[in-house]
Amino acid sequence: MAIITLTTDFGYKDHFVGAVKGTILGSLPEVNIVDISHAISPFNIQECAYILKNAYRSFPEGTVHIVGVDSELSPENQHIVVQVDGHYFVSANSGVISLITSEVTPEKVVEIQLPNTQSGSFPVLNVFVQVACHIARGGKLEVIGKPFAALKELKEFEPRVSNDGRTISGNVIYIDNYGNVVTNIQRSLFEAYRNGRDYELTARTTKIKEIQKSYNGIINFDLDRSQRKGPGDALALFNSAGYIELAIYKSDLNSVGGASTLLGLNYRDIVTINFS
Amino acid sequence: MAIITLTTDFGYKDHFVGAVKGTILGSLPEVNIVDISHAISPFNIQECAYILKNAYRSFPEGTVHIVGVDSELSPENQHIVVQVDGHYFVSANSGVISLITSEVTPEKVVEIQLPNTQSGSFPVLNVFVQVACHIARGGKLEVIGKPFAALKELKEFEPRVSNDGRTISGNVIYIDNYGNVVTNIQRSLFEAYRNGRDYELTARTTKIKEIQKSYNGIINFDLDRSQRKGPGDALALFNSAGYIELAIYKSDLNSVGGASTLLGLNYRDIVTINFS
Amino acid sequence: MAIITLTTDFGYKDHFVGAVKGTILGSLPEVNIVDISHAISPFNIQECAYILKNAYRSFPEGTVHIVGVDSELSPENQHIVVQVDGHYFVSANSGVISLITSEVTPEKVVEIQLPNTQSGSFPVLNVFVQVACHIARGGKLEVIGKPFAALKELKEFEPRVSNDGRTISGNVIYIDNYGNVVTNIQRSLFEAYRNGRDYELTARTTKIKEIQKSYNGIINFDLDRSQRKGPGDALALFNSAGYIELAIYKSDLNSVGGASTLLGLNYRDIVTINFS
Repeated sequence: MAIITLTTDFGYKDHFVGAVKGTILGSLPEVNIVDISHAISPFNIQECAYILKNAYRSFPEGTVHIVGVDSELSPENQHIVVQVDGHYFVSANSGVISLITSEVTPEKVVEIQLPNTQSGSFPVLNVFVQVACHIARGGKLEVIGKPFAALKELKEFEPRVSNDGRTISGNVIYIDNYGNVVTNIQRSLFEAYRNGRDYELTARTTKIKEIQKSYNGIINFDLDRSQRKGPGDALALFNSAGYIELAIYKSDLNSVGGASTLLGLNYRDIVTINFS
Repeated sequence: MAIITLTTDFGYKDHFVGAVKGTILGSLPEVNIVDISHAISPFNIQECAYILKNAYRSFPEGTVHIVGVDSELSPENQHIVVQVDGHYFVSANSGVISLITSEVTPEKVVEIQLPNTQSGSFPVLNVFVQVACHIARGGKLEVIGKPFAALKELKEFEPRVSNDGRTISGNVIYIDNYGNVVTNIQRSLFEAYRNGRDYELTARTTKIKEIQKSYNGIINFDLDRSQRKGPGDALALFNSAGYIELAIYKSDLNSVGGASTLLGLNYRDIVTINFS
Repeated sequence: MAIITLTTDFGYKDHFVGAVKGTILGSLPEVNIVDISHAISPFNIQECAYILKNAYRSFPEGTVHIVGVDSELSPENQHIVVQVDGHYFVSANSGVISLITSEVTPEKVVEIQLPNTQSGSFPVLNVFVQVACHIARGGKLEVIGKPFAALKELKEFEPRVSNDGRTISGNVIYIDNYGNVVTNIQRSLFEAYRNGRDYELTARTTKIKEIQKSYNGIINFDLDRSQRKGPGDALALFNSAGYIELAIYKSDLNSVGGASTLLGLNYRDIVTINFS
């Protein structure tokens, strides 16, 4: 059964998501529709890219991903389909694709040109659904439109490495449901420069000398509970998406707080690693 | 595969939605269950009707819609099934059906009378699921109960047109995920009275002289970016549901704000169109 | 078609839920994935247990329930599968199972031991999905690991009955989407001690002399509307999960308030029933 995913800033209350799903099911009764997220901050391309980048690879090849963020058609925001990494993205040319595929090269990019279709103020419903169902049915991209060579490039913050190789400076790129703070410093970059040296990670006033492989890496389970570190302690880890993340062990934004609130870290803030 | 949709005020945290889905799947393993919304404000019939009215038509004919808002059985709130426009609504007689179907006449209305069933405090689980699965399996409405003639009529705000045909006064009926403000003035009404005249839309202190067909209708893409209107500018448009809507271009309620906050517009507020 | 449910504290915004669903569908294309809740308060085992306990029984036997709350592997938080009441729970040994199954005895408990699998910081994705798909395909528990006898016991608050049988004291264990306040006093306990006596329920300053069977049990529909009780009045009822609950008739936390706010009741607060 074909899979179509949805990643939008529609929220969970309005009729938008329901209307889109109803239209998909009307066109393609046998399909798995999966919500990746409808809680993207409105028009936030960076956030959309971060979430979709870390979700799409878990889906089987051939999955069609509808990207419903800032998708209104304009001369500068064409409607496109991108085939990349075995997946299909139906999206506006908002730059989101360049952020999602920064490490892979698209195999095919097509500009959507459907006859007798008004995109209007709800292009996901009026255009993207039709295109996604066509692809999910095994249809060719060539039928949808013509090759497109002007994929918009958005730059994300890139970590900087000092000339002497002693410092990596990155930025906060995402804050998750637990208030955990994700940086753009990937484990592979860190490992490439470390060369067995000790290091210290600095984020505002927080300094951490070891990056864990799991959240409970800071806990010494051989100690008696009363002597252990525990809920409320700050830590750094290589998260499941491959980035360095700052976290509070067992944080809850609604009670004790999370790394974002307790360490005072916001989107774009600088996180530095110094090798000694 | 049959489709059953859910529109409720259950929220996304409690066990209610899960229990309902489990019961449906126990009765009807091959079914598409689609969430339209579980974020209706508790007991808010108007909001429920607005969302369901704008979502249900996107589903194929034969879809069964469970309406789980204010559904407790009472002598004044009977449990009913309404067949209308090719769709089935399983609901309480709360008035929600009259708001959803204000422009179409129900084909059949039946009062639910199931033997050996206690409706209790969770009628969606105890009654509506059974009825919805019966219909989804192709069962007849006649088996569920007897014809019902007392469908409750709720009146929504209706736009008023002045005697001289120079003024349309409407009301705010919904505020969406972006803070966009939806009025009850439909495009068809506007066009019927316009007669090619210029006009001015007034909402509190905001005055707008053109209603767009898309959100970026206010942007002149021929101008240099620095000279264009852009994020933060107010606009009016005919939205995808056919209503006149006030919006802020690329608004985000959590950062810059939306039309509701920036223009100071709330549910029920008056919006006026004066033809010159 | 097999059913896999998800109950987590992942929230609805991040990529976690999407990644889990994609991985399930990659392994098992024909499956019904049902979200029970992703809004469990982070690491809150009690809340998770309350919601899952009241949802799982609605699913058909054979359903596999993934529990994604506090699931990081440690010497004290093993990964387990529990077969109980005809259902399968894939979970950490966090104590959540003891709370869910306090009234039934597990048929089989197995400690998960998958070769060549790193649990890491995202065990639901890396371990639980594989196990859940194995079971959903009809695989045996014995293949997953070895029998496990150290199921962690968490105690929930238990209602206390005074020696003279005249008083039951319970606690608030959950506050729902409407602000309704659920106690741990079950109807069966109440009935066992009542013996036909009158009673008074006390919660802070609120005193109630009758427990309803439905929310509108407090409304006398024979009276004229102007003379009835109505929205805003407090009531107690035996809720659909079998517990005594305090509610405000037609409450909305965002407008008039709910029982939690209006009666000043929080998690753990004491609710007493005195028989006269």
